[in-house]
Amino acid sequence: MSKGITSRKDDYSQWYNELVTKADLAEHSAVRGCMVIKPYGYSIWEKMQAALDKMFKDTGHSNAYFPLFIPKSFFSKEASHVEGFATECAVVTHYRLKNDGNGNIIVDEDAKLEEELIVRPTSETIIWNTYKGWIQSYRDLPILVNQWANVVRWEMRTRLFLRTAEFLWQEGHTAHATQQEAVEEAERMLEVYADFAENWMAVPVVKGIKTPNERFAGALETYCIEALMQDGKALQAGTSHFLGQNFAKAFDVKFTSKEGKLDYVWATSWGVSTRLMGALIMAHSDDSGLVLPPMLAPIQVVIVPIYKGDEEFKAISEVADNLSRELKAKNISVKYDDRDTHRPGFKFAEYELKGVPVRIALGGRDLENGTAEIARRDTKEKETVSRDGLADRIENLLADIQKNIYQKAFKFREENTTEVNSYEEFKQVLDSQAGFVSAHWDGTPETEQKIKEETKATIRCIPLNNKQEAGVCIYSGKASTQRVLFARAY
Amino acid sequence: MSKGITSRKDDYSQWYNELVTKADLAEHSAVRGCMVIKPYGYSIWEKMQAALDKMFKDTGHSNAYFPLFIPKSFFSKEASHVEGFATECAVVTHYRLKNDGNGNIIVDEDAKLEEELIVRPTSETIIWNTYKGWIQSYRDLPILVNQWANVVRWEMRTRLFLRTAEFLWQEGHTAHATQQEAVEEAERMLEVYADFAENWMAVPVVKGIKTPNERFAGALETYCIEALMQDGKALQAGTSHFLGQNFAKAFDVKFTSKEGKLDYVWATSWGVSTRLMGALIMAHSDDSGLVLPPMLAPIQVVIVPIYKGDEEFKAISEVADNLSRELKAKNISVKYDDRDTHRPGFKFAEYELKGVPVRIALGGRDLENGTAEIARRDTKEKETVSRDGLADRIENLLADIQKNIYQKAFKFREENTTEVNSYEEFKQVLDSQAGFVSAHWDGTPETEQKIKEETKATIRCIPLNNKQEAGVCIYSGKASTQRVLFARAY
Repeated sequence: MSKGITSRKDDYSQWYNELVTKADLAEHSAVRGCMVIKPYGYSIWEKMQAALDKMFKDTGHSNAYFPLFIPKSFFSKEASHVEGFATECAVVTHYRLKNDGNGNIIVDEDAKLEEELIVRPTSETIIWNTYKGWIQSYRDLPILVNQWANVVRWEMRTRLFLRTAEFLWQEGHTAHATQQEAVEEAERMLEVYADFAENWMAVPVVKGIKTPNERFAGALETYCIEALMQDGKALQAGTSHFLGQNFAKAFDVKFTSKEGKLDYVWATSWGVSTRLMGALIMAHSDDSGLVLPPMLAPIQVVIVPIYKGDEEFKAISEVADNLSRELKAKNISVKYDDRDTHRPGFKFAEYELKGVPVRIALGGRDLENGTAEIARRDTKEKETVSRDGLADRIENLLADIQKNIYQKAFKFREENTTEVNSYEEFKQVLDSQAGFVSAHWDGTPETEQKIKEETKATIRCIPLNNKQEAGVCIYSGKASTQRVLFARAY
Repeated sequence: MSKGITSRKDDYSQWYNELVTKADLAEHSAVRGCMVIKPYGYSIWEKMQAALDKMFKDTGHSNAYFPLFIPKSFFSKEASHVEGFATECAVVTHYRLKNDGNGNIIVDEDAKLEEELIVRPTSETIIWNTYKGWIQSYRDLPILVNQWANVVRWEMRTRLFLRTAEFLWQEGHTAHATQQEAVEEAERMLEVYADFAENWMAVPVVKGIKTPNERFAGALETYCIEALMQDGKALQAGTSHFLGQNFAKAFDVKFTSKEGKLDYVWATSWGVSTRLMGALIMAHSDDSGLVLPPMLAPIQVVIVPIYKGDEEFKAISEVADNLSRELKAKNISVKYDDRDTHRPGFKFAEYELKGVPVRIALGGRDLENGTAEIARRDTKEKETVSRDGLADRIENLLADIQKNIYQKAFKFREENTTEVNSYEEFKQVLDSQAGFVSAHWDGTPETEQKIKEETKATIRCIPLNNKQEAGVCIYSGKASTQRVLFARAY
């Protein structure tokens, strides 16, 4: 089918772009910066959603839905928030088009909004304006709400999944009676994200906190999980914010405590987005196409018949149907590809491209011998095995693949995390293998900014439970008490 | 809790508005016409989504996602479509705000879009523009895609769930090689909608086709399901459109047939929205609050303890916990409300308001006697029954309630569907009981329009498999071959 893609070595960025479109995950739309998520890509996102949604509900959250539009004035209410978001957003100014009489559709200037509406880039403002009506006393707290929604941030340079003007995400917004409870919530959701990244996506992550420079606009603390891609660049895969009382103050949300005292409510927000699709793709895939962890693969097993003539086809199909039934009984998703319009070789390449974890080929000789050929996508190993107990074997194989993909990514990260003790060494590592670079930093925004300007590397995070260790800042030479994690990032 | 609501008799419209807000389903937001769907309301919508999504997938459809924004020029491409939608839509003209230097946030006039973007009111145009790239030959067909999304139609008069500027919906968009296949698809999805309305929502519906006047902008045929609310007004609960080749022609989407002939692709689209929430509420609820069909109730059974002292509370809680486990094992959702901050009477009223189908009260005497009091929400009947076999009994009761709610609504519709043979009688029925009015119509848009202007009644549909019967139009006296269904409608 001539869907060969550029190799990672030749051009990692090009490899990614080709893979996303050729594996039918997503494509650019007619609208600048907005993507179309195609059915195959969307089915992976649906699996992510389902797993995350269950985790949110298991930790006591409910879903709700808030408006797409936010009145412009809301953005002025939280000072740092407006700096972060209002400068890159879609603005609705009119509510009607009209025919100009010559058959042209134009904006109807008589239908101008009194106050412009912003298409939500994130929903803290509209949600806290709503919570004001929901909260009077401690009995109304906590509020543990999540929203699955689309948001718009007007990015100038876009890449499918990684940076698009419109993207899909979930945003949790919680309200608490005490600071401690809010901090615990922010930390709990970071753990949920890390759990999902590692156990579903098979992507190892570093949990940490952001430096003030890199914090969410309006947060007192931003927790994050950071993953490493195969090109040595980091990717922020999820964030959880402790917002303090900033939004409660901006929207005047107070509650009466058990003791009868009036106080502002404490807040968190946390989100992951379709960006996770980019992380999933870049963490595991190879030059033949996608490599998907079985837990998120829309099709976990594909069966391809290899036959001569109708009779052999029928006999193979019977075996395939039985095997499919056995696999489905184990909750394994399986597709029997009996299309007669494509040859087996074409199909093999297609499922490799699409990252189906296990491929089973059934031929005439397998019929005779009671065997099947199984091929795993991650290592590309093939093996001819007995049909007896095959479903059990596949079940174990899927679990093994899930584990192997994680371990491979983990090993890669370990090999690409380097401790350095001088700025020279720091730059050398960045320019050779890149990856995470662990270095002492004097804790000032100025040094952080200088390093960023000179090397394009940012502090990805200060890892949680970071080892305290005396040292000197690689840039300023000033005293430092801990190493932080630098990297160039997506 | 003094959440008493206006009775239906006194003011049906007020009853609805109060019910929606007091039962925590939804509320108005700070943005004109946009609603907040609250967690309890959203959990019902989630149940609807899950059931529909499974039905779509079982009929071969996949989900995908298309952009929120549509270039203005796309609306000029399908002539009738632009008339229907462009006149009531949100228009994005700028992509940035800025600080004016005096601390005011204003629209940055330097960031004006070259071409204005429309917030999608429906996605036929952007989707068919995308399908152009997906379809070359008959091998690429059919395309069976659905999207769950938010859409915006700038309504001037809004009501929660029934008519809001932004609402949530699903829109299916399919592409076919032949007219027949597309018509079959449109009809198949109408059946899916009717199945869902009747078997999940417990709302009986009339399946029919719309008159040309009432068709979707751009469709050759609009199929619909129509339901009757308790105030005698009809509500269109879902539509499925056969679009012919209109959008394929507008966006130049052709395919090569098996025979090598080039032809335009045939299309359908179909959708239901959060409007179904309005239908669900209005079809069944009473003056005490919501009445939810068990199949869509977020909480199917609530257990309320009635106790004196800690010891009795502990003993009751043990029984409640055991019962909860038994019910959960049957996939019945159950809540044990052991809050000590509210009295049983308050809880009873709250769960009545929220439409929980079955309430179980456990008191001291029940402990002694091995009994429980069960109350069903639909008929308000109470009964003291043995704890032996209680879970089985509840399971049967839930099925019975589901059936009973449907039958009650069905009986109401039957009693409120009237055949009339004169315009006098027509107006009389409309002004007394309202409901569906079955009458002969001469088939002209002019007569339909006159009747609408004079009585506010519209032709809801021409029922499928309509009985052919000679008669005369109630308005014009001209010959007619069939009755059609009129009603005043939401």
